[in-house]
Amino acid sequence: MPRSPNSPRPKAGSVTLATVAQRAGVSPQTVSNALNSPELLRPETLERVRRTIDELGYRPHRAAQTLRTRSSKLIGYGIRPTAPGTSAPVMDRFLHALSQTADEAGYRILLFASPPGSAGLDGYEELLDLHSVDGFVLSGTERGDQRQAWLEKRGVPFVGFGRMWSGRQIGDWVDVDGASGTDAAVEHLVALGHRRIAFLGWPRGSGVGDDRAMGWQRAMQRHGLPVRGKRAQSIDDIASAQAAVGPLLDAGVTAVIAASDMLALGCYHALRERRAVPGKDVAVVGFDDSPTAALLSPGLSTVAQPLEAVGRECVRLLLARMSELGAPPERVLLEPSLVVRNSTSASDD
Amino acid sequence: MPRSPNSPRPKAGSVTLATVAQRAGVSPQTVSNALNSPELLRPETLERVRRTIDELGYRPHRAAQTLRTRSSKLIGYGIRPTAPGTSAPVMDRFLHALSQTADEAGYRILLFASPPGSAGLDGYEELLDLHSVDGFVLSGTERGDQRQAWLEKRGVPFVGFGRMWSGRQIGDWVDVDGASGTDAAVEHLVALGHRRIAFLGWPRGSGVGDDRAMGWQRAMQRHGLPVRGKRAQSIDDIASAQAAVGPLLDAGVTAVIAASDMLALGCYHALRERRAVPGKDVAVVGFDDSPTAALLSPGLSTVAQPLEAVGRECVRLLLARMSELGAPPERVLLEPSLVVRNSTSASDD
Repeated sequence: MPRSPNSPRPKAGSVTLATVAQRAGVSPQTVSNALNSPELLRPETLERVRRTIDELGYRPHRAAQTLRTRSSKLIGYGIRPTAPGTSAPVMDRFLHALSQTADEAGYRILLFASPPGSAGLDGYEELLDLHSVDGFVLSGTERGDQRQAWLEKRGVPFVGFGRMWSGRQIGDWVDVDGASGTDAAVEHLVALGHRRIAFLGWPRGSGVGDDRAMGWQRAMQRHGLPVRGKRAQSIDDIASAQAAVGPLLDAGVTAVIAASDMLALGCYHALRERRAVPGKDVAVVGFDDSPTAALLSPGLSTVAQPLEAVGRECVRLLLARMSELGAPPERVLLEPSLVVRNSTSASDD
Repeated sequence: MPRSPNSPRPKAGSVTLATVAQRAGVSPQTVSNALNSPELLRPETLERVRRTIDELGYRPHRAAQTLRTRSSKLIGYGIRPTAPGTSAPVMDRFLHALSQTADEAGYRILLFASPPGSAGLDGYEELLDLHSVDGFVLSGTERGDQRQAWLEKRGVPFVGFGRMWSGRQIGDWVDVDGASGTDAAVEHLVALGHRRIAFLGWPRGSGVGDDRAMGWQRAMQRHGLPVRGKRAQSIDDIASAQAAVGPLLDAGVTAVIAASDMLALGCYHALRERRAVPGKDVAVVGFDDSPTAALLSPGLSTVAQPLEAVGRECVRLLLARMSELGAPPERVLLEPSLVVRNSTSASDD
């Protein structure tokens, strides 16, 4: 029994397949056919149902579409806890960009709490199993990461924020070119007149840390500047960094590039311990542009990761992969940018 | 045609209703009945199907269950961008706790990018419409927030991280008792011998800021200490805070409690401008325990919000609300904790 065409339009969200059927004067099965098997309907019936769907703003229920199309329009993302007291970049920004870009493409991000290491694979399995996610975004990729191989074997689309640091490259990824960031830091310091530029890194063996060290080394060598005896290493902790950088300062380096803002803060402490002023006596550059960098005194020059762009690129690559699982892998290396603050002023200041 | 009981167990994730039917030697409809209308089956058939389901580790597909039970096991959360250069607490920690507690209860967090203000209501409508989320967690509640009334009107379960700051209280919420935090800061400073304790707040009218000011005021009055002329206000910006707190320092206050770590940093700058040392000449207390607080020199004493507990409580209240929509509202006010660092040492130090 069709309602009059002038009856009020139901509130969005309350329109069901039954509402459409009633308004169009057909059975619910006919509406279902119009959506899924239009060839079964007479053209005039199909036309009437489609017009009613448009009029009412009916959107087929996602769960029903999932069963029909085998696409849930969901992207899984395993969230890891932020260690307290770190100076790491805030992943909020990455997650917001990821969520926004996915939204624009009609997808949603489904979160799950993911422990590091292979214990986390259960969470991935469960999301596939229970929610039929269409793919995954991985972050915090590390040496020996098993997630990429696990997902590849199952034919599940995924994209990594972070390249593979060991073994062969698997799948698509988006990463930030850390070496390019420390290279740019050397260029900046050389332009300011510095020659004795040290690098304070993490212990060798971390993919991210070795990459950042490599950018410093290649830029120094390009300028014919010595790297021997100009390198120290420390875990990502202020007191440890403060102790590690001491001998370099005592040997008279005029600038220190650190692999993280946390290590750079250790330099600040080591300089103050020696009654020296960061940015005046010795230039300091950090890495990450953590919220702390802008708030220090003097403000810390640091290499910023384009987290919003990483989030957008992750979604772009994942959508491409979902539409063609067999396409050749795509890898995107984004340029970081040097944020110059008062910790790097001219050495003859 | 049932397979032999010794045929290998299919990989988890690949078990479908059809697999179960084949293995049990029944039709898919019979398996469906075993799950949804067991009374239709003969006891021995039901027993056989159930045993096969257990053996194969079959988990009915979430989308199918959504259609059947009208529960998607999804909780919507609108993520907002973090303003760059803020010293706000890192919402990563809240989101991780939310996600983990939800996981444990069999629910998942579905993210969407949410602009502030009522423009964001579209996102809520879409999640209800397309994904049938079972409820929402709201954060960043503000004066004139329309989301609570909008969701209440539609009978959608929700819980707010943050109370209502204007009008009547609507629905369940979890919040942190900001007044209790600044009250504890006064107690700490009084115990150290301070009497002239100032408050540097945000401009009046923000719910969160006025609450933090109130805790300082009530504790000062309890100790018979003067509040007149001891209060300044600034927007959440270092330079502005530095200018605003100047007159209080010049009038000889011995301690400043700030409504945020950012305002506390403004105090550090104002003190250094006067050749005074935070924690030695004037004690400073911040609010939020942002990552920066621990990294400053001297370390900033500050009031920490129990973000993990907030996340867990949000899920607990929401699950209770989903199981009984008509139950009386539940509101949880959690105690923050004072983290003492070197910015508050004894005034006769």
